[in-house]
Amino acid sequence: MEQTFTSSATGPGIARGAVAALADEPLDWRFKAAPPGAWGRTTREWLATGPTLSSLGTPLLTLDGAALDHNIRTMAHWCAKAGVALAPHGKTTMAPALWQAQLDAGSHGITLANLPQVWIARAFGVQRVLLANTLLDPAGLAWLAEELAADPDFAFLSWVDSVESVRLMDEALRAAGAERPIEVMVELGGPGGRTGARGVDAAVAVAAAVLRAPTLRLAGVGGYEGALAHDASAEGLAAVRGYLRELGELHGRLAGAYPDGVRPVVSAGGSAYFDLVVEELAKLPEAFVVLRSGAYIAHDDGFYRGISPLARGGGEVPFRGALHGWARVVSRPEPQLALLDAGKRDLPFDEGLPEPQRVRGGAELTGTAARITALNDQHAFLRDAGDLAPIGAVLRLGVSHPCTAFDKWTAIPVLDDANAAEPKVTGLVRTFF
Amino acid sequence: MEQTFTSSATGPGIARGAVAALADEPLDWRFKAAPPGAWGRTTREWLATGPTLSSLGTPLLTLDGAALDHNIRTMAHWCAKAGVALAPHGKTTMAPALWQAQLDAGSHGITLANLPQVWIARAFGVQRVLLANTLLDPAGLAWLAEELAADPDFAFLSWVDSVESVRLMDEALRAAGAERPIEVMVELGGPGGRTGARGVDAAVAVAAAVLRAPTLRLAGVGGYEGALAHDASAEGLAAVRGYLRELGELHGRLAGAYPDGVRPVVSAGGSAYFDLVVEELAKLPEAFVVLRSGAYIAHDDGFYRGISPLARGGGEVPFRGALHGWARVVSRPEPQLALLDAGKRDLPFDEGLPEPQRVRGGAELTGTAARITALNDQHAFLRDAGDLAPIGAVLRLGVSHPCTAFDKWTAIPVLDDANAAEPKVTGLVRTFF
Repeated sequence: MEQTFTSSATGPGIARGAVAALADEPLDWRFKAAPPGAWGRTTREWLATGPTLSSLGTPLLTLDGAALDHNIRTMAHWCAKAGVALAPHGKTTMAPALWQAQLDAGSHGITLANLPQVWIARAFGVQRVLLANTLLDPAGLAWLAEELAADPDFAFLSWVDSVESVRLMDEALRAAGAERPIEVMVELGGPGGRTGARGVDAAVAVAAAVLRAPTLRLAGVGGYEGALAHDASAEGLAAVRGYLRELGELHGRLAGAYPDGVRPVVSAGGSAYFDLVVEELAKLPEAFVVLRSGAYIAHDDGFYRGISPLARGGGEVPFRGALHGWARVVSRPEPQLALLDAGKRDLPFDEGLPEPQRVRGGAELTGTAARITALNDQHAFLRDAGDLAPIGAVLRLGVSHPCTAFDKWTAIPVLDDANAAEPKVTGLVRTFF
Repeated sequence: MEQTFTSSATGPGIARGAVAALADEPLDWRFKAAPPGAWGRTTREWLATGPTLSSLGTPLLTLDGAALDHNIRTMAHWCAKAGVALAPHGKTTMAPALWQAQLDAGSHGITLANLPQVWIARAFGVQRVLLANTLLDPAGLAWLAEELAADPDFAFLSWVDSVESVRLMDEALRAAGAERPIEVMVELGGPGGRTGARGVDAAVAVAAAVLRAPTLRLAGVGGYEGALAHDASAEGLAAVRGYLRELGELHGRLAGAYPDGVRPVVSAGGSAYFDLVVEELAKLPEAFVVLRSGAYIAHDDGFYRGISPLARGGGEVPFRGALHGWARVVSRPEPQLALLDAGKRDLPFDEGLPEPQRVRGGAELTGTAARITALNDQHAFLRDAGDLAPIGAVLRLGVSHPCTAFDKWTAIPVLDDANAAEPKVTGLVRTFF
């Protein structure tokens, strides 16, 4: 029996052996986070030597293992309580070991954004993939059809938002001789938003086209509420809520239209508004509600710290920022200007600049006037730290936007506790970008 | 005899065998630019199958081989004519094969920005490295001392901009038992600039400290004029020229202070103002002038197109933009809005957004109202392309800022001619970030 995205019969979800084998990979200069002392050793062997943070160079990005565990557990618990499934967006980390941790905590599958990301998921045996995008590349669809035919346990669900996309997908899948129909959700968008059919009527027309296409199977509705607002203001929240109600309306309009045996998916939910998603969608009849939050796993000390539902909501345990940059003061050419050896190639800068938090083995910087005012390719400009950040000091930096932090590192050391005086390196997360 | 940065006796400059061996690396899903048809083959084997652009998926970044060759030749010729040496900034590409092409065209060495980049250069046997930064990490200095001791042909030159940095370097190098002194240039900065001693007097004091430090050897002066302006306005050019004159003054102040046998290096020159650098510095007596331009090799269709000296100067052959993004229209939810499947993870966005140039096998977009107005992590917003960019179409995009384009790709296909109707894939450039 071929699996569908909502099937409850599951295999292991991910190829544990392939994930575990990453720790047998030899380390060398290919990994900018791996110091020369690790070269020639596998990750497993290097970790067995008991490395600590101070044995690593700069610039550096680290993950706090305790914060990661906390965030994964907290989100899993929150979704279970809300009665919704979670298919965390894997594009945030592109790290099979972290996907495995999310699946182990009860995630239903992994969401991805494009075909190269699906290749990586399949290389690590991920069995349920939600592609939150429309796949139109004929060669890509041919690959997908072959992959689905070869593995009846592989469940794949993607999006479509126009009658023309349905036509192009169907044409390419017929040409490829696809054996299994591809499950698709109709994507609803919103004015000023990103992809997605504009308005419920347009979306219903797309669904009708899917129902006529023999190579596709209508599996639900969804979209991305995060493109409709960028803050937690009353206006932003109202725009998101209005969109979610339209999505609920679309779900209602399609009741009875699904093929036999399909329990319709209703999916929304990045890391910024998943509370509203649950408020509006969890009550829908017959819906298999899937959240796709990705950034929550690492959270941050910037954009998501400001907007996370668990920070907004009363009485919730908030997520913890798990990502930290570490950079050294290499110059202090003016009394209130210091230059650090981390830049745009090392740390995210698109949703706010890194924030100086403290000096390793030294002063607290949080709450002082010290701030980063610009990044160059390989430098950060630190202002108003005065004597708190002397030449040679290593600073811990909070970062904003996990998605553009992970993608700058092929291997990210995991610390037991980034707040410890001498954090231990307890893992090394491999990413694939 | 141990090599110094200015020594003329040279070996091959880079380990050709190690660079060539990159083509024997098996391709798979680790490389987002490698289509499934290439998996299991080495780069060499895959190229032998005669792949063309249309066999590659999206999102994609490509290099135009003819433009690369043109840019490398043009810059080499320009420097030879100006009588200055070029140590191109290798951080732009982090691609040993492109470093080799630059060295083969006569470059004197490779400039780098931090220690992890030096590790990679040394893994590929680069013999002359200019670190345009101050290295203060004691473990890093110990590694460097060992590397220098082990290879008398390795010439390494770095920067220092304060008496305190000199003290820290000397302390760490003594503790490491360094055998060869490390050559350092005194870095001069400017008001509002980045690193570098502020003012000639401060720089002279740093030089005096270097002369007293037994583990260091004074080798010249330098800095980065590109941090002092960001356009080619009269004001911007005047700020750069004023800085270069100070650098010349510093060179003069240190005449006679260098150790016996040292021909002092004077180094400046990114890819934006190297004409002024030559005008002001090439005439200095006794100076071994080193330009460090990096971005020129790929040039761009954005920031550098606007500021390049060869575009400004009369009668020069300009560089050509060698980098192109390729992205597919995956949605057209509104008549004048299309969404492409390339985003902040795929293309640079920090010095201007990509520009739509044409539809593969279709309409020209340059000169139309079509433009990209925003990037999300994995999407681009294309406005006002109307029917020129139908759903499923693949667009060629010009990009701005090579340094933040290369670092998003571990392997970049080289096309024979990005303007051809069906470009052939003639190479695959591996990068190491």
